[in-house]
Amino acid sequence: MDLQKYLKDRGAIVNEALECHLPLAGDLPGVIHEAMRYSATDGGKRVRPILALAACEAVGGSYQSAMPAGCAIEFIHAFSLIHDDLPCMDDDDFRRGKLTSHKVYGEAIALLAGDALISLAFEVIAATPDVPALRLLEVSRLVARATGTRGMIGGQVLDMLAEGRDVELSDVEAIHRRKTGALLEVSAVVGGILGGGSKDQVDALSIYGKNIGLAFQVADDILDLTGDSEKLGKSTGSDLRQKKATYPSVIGIERSKSLGEKAVSDAIEALSIFDENADPLRAIARFIIERDV
Amino acid sequence: MDLQKYLKDRGAIVNEALECHLPLAGDLPGVIHEAMRYSATDGGKRVRPILALAACEAVGGSYQSAMPAGCAIEFIHAFSLIHDDLPCMDDDDFRRGKLTSHKVYGEAIALLAGDALISLAFEVIAATPDVPALRLLEVSRLVARATGTRGMIGGQVLDMLAEGRDVELSDVEAIHRRKTGALLEVSAVVGGILGGGSKDQVDALSIYGKNIGLAFQVADDILDLTGDSEKLGKSTGSDLRQKKATYPSVIGIERSKSLGEKAVSDAIEALSIFDENADPLRAIARFIIERDV
Repeated sequence: MDLQKYLKDRGAIVNEALECHLPLAGDLPGVIHEAMRYSATDGGKRVRPILALAACEAVGGSYQSAMPAGCAIEFIHAFSLIHDDLPCMDDDDFRRGKLTSHKVYGEAIALLAGDALISLAFEVIAATPDVPALRLLEVSRLVARATGTRGMIGGQVLDMLAEGRDVELSDVEAIHRRKTGALLEVSAVVGGILGGGSKDQVDALSIYGKNIGLAFQVADDILDLTGDSEKLGKSTGSDLRQKKATYPSVIGIERSKSLGEKAVSDAIEALSIFDENADPLRAIARFIIERDV
Repeated sequence: MDLQKYLKDRGAIVNEALECHLPLAGDLPGVIHEAMRYSATDGGKRVRPILALAACEAVGGSYQSAMPAGCAIEFIHAFSLIHDDLPCMDDDDFRRGKLTSHKVYGEAIALLAGDALISLAFEVIAATPDVPALRLLEVSRLVARATGTRGMIGGQVLDMLAEGRDVELSDVEAIHRRKTGALLEVSAVVGGILGGGSKDQVDALSIYGKNIGLAFQVADDILDLTGDSEKLGKSTGSDLRQKKATYPSVIGIERSKSLGEKAVSDAIEALSIFDENADPLRAIARFIIERDV
């Protein structure tokens, strides 16, 4: 399959859906809707929604069933970036080559735009048409859990606590399993649930998701050290300067690469119970460690 | 009925339920769980959960059905207070006579504790036992909507935009219908839904909730001008100093009092379709303008 074309096409339909779910900038109070749109419709790759759609199809569902939840997870991701960039967190002025939200709208609106993206996510999941209520409720619970202190936010706190300290591989794993892993894993899992997958299928998607979450973070850490800052739209080497807990900093680049490759092969192995409908998931797993942006 | 005893008893069972739903401070990462507990288990009056329980009983339901949603709304309320107090917002050092979250835990943890309380709210709603999934999904959607830009967060933005400007009664109403009204209204509404109320009953609870939201804000504005700062646990006159849009500042204290009394009688009028099971709701409506804290 032509993965680049697939990602581009899927990215386009996801972007259309994101547009539909976001409040219009013309609705009062416009400034916060503008800020939400600024961060949620920018040049992201839409990895999480694309994973949700692909997992939904892997179990034989129609991708439309997973679109609202996929958008919801992208809203959660967008909120996390806005809040991470705030002065009291990483204090970043640029993200993906654009000014960060608080540089454009001020800190108060950036804070509230992030907050509003969280609640919008759960509103969008609950309003999904043509999917049984029990499935949607389970999806809402899992997305909430993956967002909170046992997921992304907890990982963010662990990461902050580790900054500047000596850490081991197990610490880095604990941080990233939550910080980036939880949201990627839940994307695959909710796709499977919304497509009507069996327990075995959803469990396999969970293992797949955990492993690509790991591979994704390893690749991100390596790109921060060796990547092209122009292509990435952000400065490289910032993890090193901020003494962040990364895979290369605890086990070196070569062992990090092996770890990423092992995770990708474990992810693909987990998909062995699926037929060719899971080919996009397989291709995405390979792409994650081969990408240069 | 003895409302003071009722509020005290209900406050106690709500506090127990809040405790149960919050992650333990011993769970890693402990610092954010401590921060969440610090703000969500403090000396608040638990008006919102108590309303949800009372509305559930007014339609003939068992209050237990509304407890998780009531706690969820209290978590949303707690998040809004943490974020409102941050330096980039109101920059307050004290709340209810205690240091604010960011003064105790630092800005980054306070920010993330607020974020985590939002996602916890939706996790708790989705995990409610023994209630039909369709009802829970509707409750999740309504709470999300009341939290976001068409509800509380939107009202907060309108309030910020109005600060220091000349405003009219219609502006103050638009701000507070969202900022405090939306969450109080949704408390009564979701109580009715979770108790299995009919459409007419839920509509009546919505009118009741809107009106006590209005009365609550009017009373709050008046207390800020005339109240006892020691009883309130915060300094009075702060709205005036910050040139906030309040009812007394646009229509004076006497007309504000009349407006509050009218809202309370409209709220009680909306309950005419209910029997004596709605007596606590009636008593709460009266209490809102009579309270001095």
